[in-house]
Amino acid sequence: MKILVLGGDGYLGWPTACYFSRRGHDVLSLDNFSKKKIENENGVSTLLSTLTIQEKIINWNKNNNKKINFETCDLLNHRSIYKKLEEFKPDAIIHYAEQPSAPYSMKDRSSAYFTQMNNVMGNLNLLFGIKKYCPEAHLVKLGTMGEYGTPNIDLEEGWLQINHNGRSDKLLFPKKPGSFYHLSKVHDTNNIEFACRLWNLKCTDLNQGVVYGCDTEELKDYSDDMGVSFHYDDIFGTVINRFISQSVTSKKLTVYGAGNQKRTFLNINDTLKCIELSVNNPAEAGEFRVFNQYTETFSINELSKIIQDACSELGRDIEIVNLENPRLEDAEHYYNPKNSGLISLGLKPIKFEKDLVKSMILKLDKYKDKIDIKRFLPSLKWQN
Amino acid sequence: MKILVLGGDGYLGWPTACYFSRRGHDVLSLDNFSKKKIENENGVSTLLSTLTIQEKIINWNKNNNKKINFETCDLLNHRSIYKKLEEFKPDAIIHYAEQPSAPYSMKDRSSAYFTQMNNVMGNLNLLFGIKKYCPEAHLVKLGTMGEYGTPNIDLEEGWLQINHNGRSDKLLFPKKPGSFYHLSKVHDTNNIEFACRLWNLKCTDLNQGVVYGCDTEELKDYSDDMGVSFHYDDIFGTVINRFISQSVTSKKLTVYGAGNQKRTFLNINDTLKCIELSVNNPAEAGEFRVFNQYTETFSINELSKIIQDACSELGRDIEIVNLENPRLEDAEHYYNPKNSGLISLGLKPIKFEKDLVKSMILKLDKYKDKIDIKRFLPSLKWQN
Repeated sequence: MKILVLGGDGYLGWPTACYFSRRGHDVLSLDNFSKKKIENENGVSTLLSTLTIQEKIINWNKNNNKKINFETCDLLNHRSIYKKLEEFKPDAIIHYAEQPSAPYSMKDRSSAYFTQMNNVMGNLNLLFGIKKYCPEAHLVKLGTMGEYGTPNIDLEEGWLQINHNGRSDKLLFPKKPGSFYHLSKVHDTNNIEFACRLWNLKCTDLNQGVVYGCDTEELKDYSDDMGVSFHYDDIFGTVINRFISQSVTSKKLTVYGAGNQKRTFLNINDTLKCIELSVNNPAEAGEFRVFNQYTETFSINELSKIIQDACSELGRDIEIVNLENPRLEDAEHYYNPKNSGLISLGLKPIKFEKDLVKSMILKLDKYKDKIDIKRFLPSLKWQN
Repeated sequence: MKILVLGGDGYLGWPTACYFSRRGHDVLSLDNFSKKKIENENGVSTLLSTLTIQEKIINWNKNNNKKINFETCDLLNHRSIYKKLEEFKPDAIIHYAEQPSAPYSMKDRSSAYFTQMNNVMGNLNLLFGIKKYCPEAHLVKLGTMGEYGTPNIDLEEGWLQINHNGRSDKLLFPKKPGSFYHLSKVHDTNNIEFACRLWNLKCTDLNQGVVYGCDTEELKDYSDDMGVSFHYDDIFGTVINRFISQSVTSKKLTVYGAGNQKRTFLNINDTLKCIELSVNNPAEAGEFRVFNQYTETFSINELSKIIQDACSELGRDIEIVNLENPRLEDAEHYYNPKNSGLISLGLKPIKFEKDLVKSMILKLDKYKDKIDIKRFLPSLKWQN
């Protein structure tokens, strides 16, 4: 198959390109380097995977029969993405090409504007390009579980059968997103659902939980500088990866608020499996299919406890501290998200357990002097 | 009160400025002239209100104690709107400043992109400006009934109490918009609701039906060239105004599809009353309040029949013809939208009746040679 990976320089884009290359697919990977630009502007960087994407691909292609091709492309330049779609004619388009940081989107007007501009307007250009050049292609779009927020009802997968005043209809699940980033994904959802209805496009929207992990099966035998990128900072570092980094540097695990907020999580290797399952079982023409892409639900307290216990088994005493929550989140809430779609396609979840935590800590131990512990603390407040 | 009118050169913006000026308010009116630019690019123009906004305001200010101030301002230029908000410090912001044509948004990539860019990104800049310079101001934002589409359940006012698997929550009503324009309003809704939650802003979102009418109480004694603008064309002409123009020129009333699709309508004078009721009864801090702003529901067949009968009373035989529907619409559907919010604030609806139709026809009769009948037919197909 011809697989187009958008956002190919990112945390998930690079491992995804390798995953499909290893399985014999033609992979074209594109990126506009906007995440790298935000990294530069904010003085944060990845701990691993420090080579450029071009260097990583040269190394990869030396050792693999199916070469990955990489090109620079910005979805905001519609002529650029049109040209790639026309020339490559992908069978599946895996769309990660969005500004991925909720905290960054809450920094100020400019960052909120960039986030919605890059994500929503870029995705709109992509939809028109698919319609024009490859309407049969299956769009696999990354959304987020954060689109839903934490309403007081069960979270279904994208759609909800609503009964109201004796009548019924199946409508898009009403969302309650908690940042301008999460809003950008909601806007995408609405635009894509319409494009499927209007032009008979086929799309799978993956509302993904928080991804953790610092290597994948395909990259684990390579040197760390071409492995999976790893952020622990207040902008791109997600909670598990930050807690692991705090453990590595013997710092306190910083829990936002009382820590009873629950979130969904999955291992980066499961992200790759989910993408493959989606690609191999495409949506129908005209179908806007949604899966909730996560494997486990934890409160932040539960997570910090698992990590603290794992550290203890390594003979390290790690404390947990509660910080004022910089975000706009419900402190206590009902949470029952569904995820049967990908499980029914065959996903076998990796569990977040102490042994896995320990393996992450041991892998990262040798980088502990490179971790900038000042970047553990939240620099951005939602209601600033 | 200090009233800021955004989109002050438009069909509703100009009459709104006059309405509040006449009632003794300080009015600052802003526009980026993007609608005029689209008119120019597509060779369509308003039949009435042909003076420039600057000329109209000079005439108005000669005859009224409370002067209207007008300035050019584009919401996409955040510094420009920031400056106006900082200097004027409005009590209420009436936000019409959005590309208003669904057909235009469906023309091609460029028009869809412009629509979402202008509307969504402009509104995002506005929200940041309000937060920074006038967080107490009441934002009165124009949405559209078309955000809902035609689901098989009653249409509540913006929010829906959802019961699901034995639990319940009140969430934003799930939308099913039918164009990139309608989608832009849905995106706005989501962004504004979050801003109210995040920053304690106060907003009334008015999901407006299709507005008809060619004059208002405030402008009826002025010459037509400074009255209410009037479009009958395939881009900005809405269905009643188009049917009236077809009647004036003795052409067939062009019904899209079988004509059983139902829509909501209101007289332009009722739009002004609704805006005033909203301004005088503001939302609370942190409240995202939604009203469905319409007074009557008709199928397109019912509308065309009322107009045909009115013509008959004027001794004119007008035929009705069905055209292939250029839009993506349900041909048959349930439709029961609620509108008790504005009624309970005191709105007394003007009815769409034969006498009103006749008065519109008689007013427009003298312009019949200026009407370009070629522009009655839809030039843009949704699924092109």
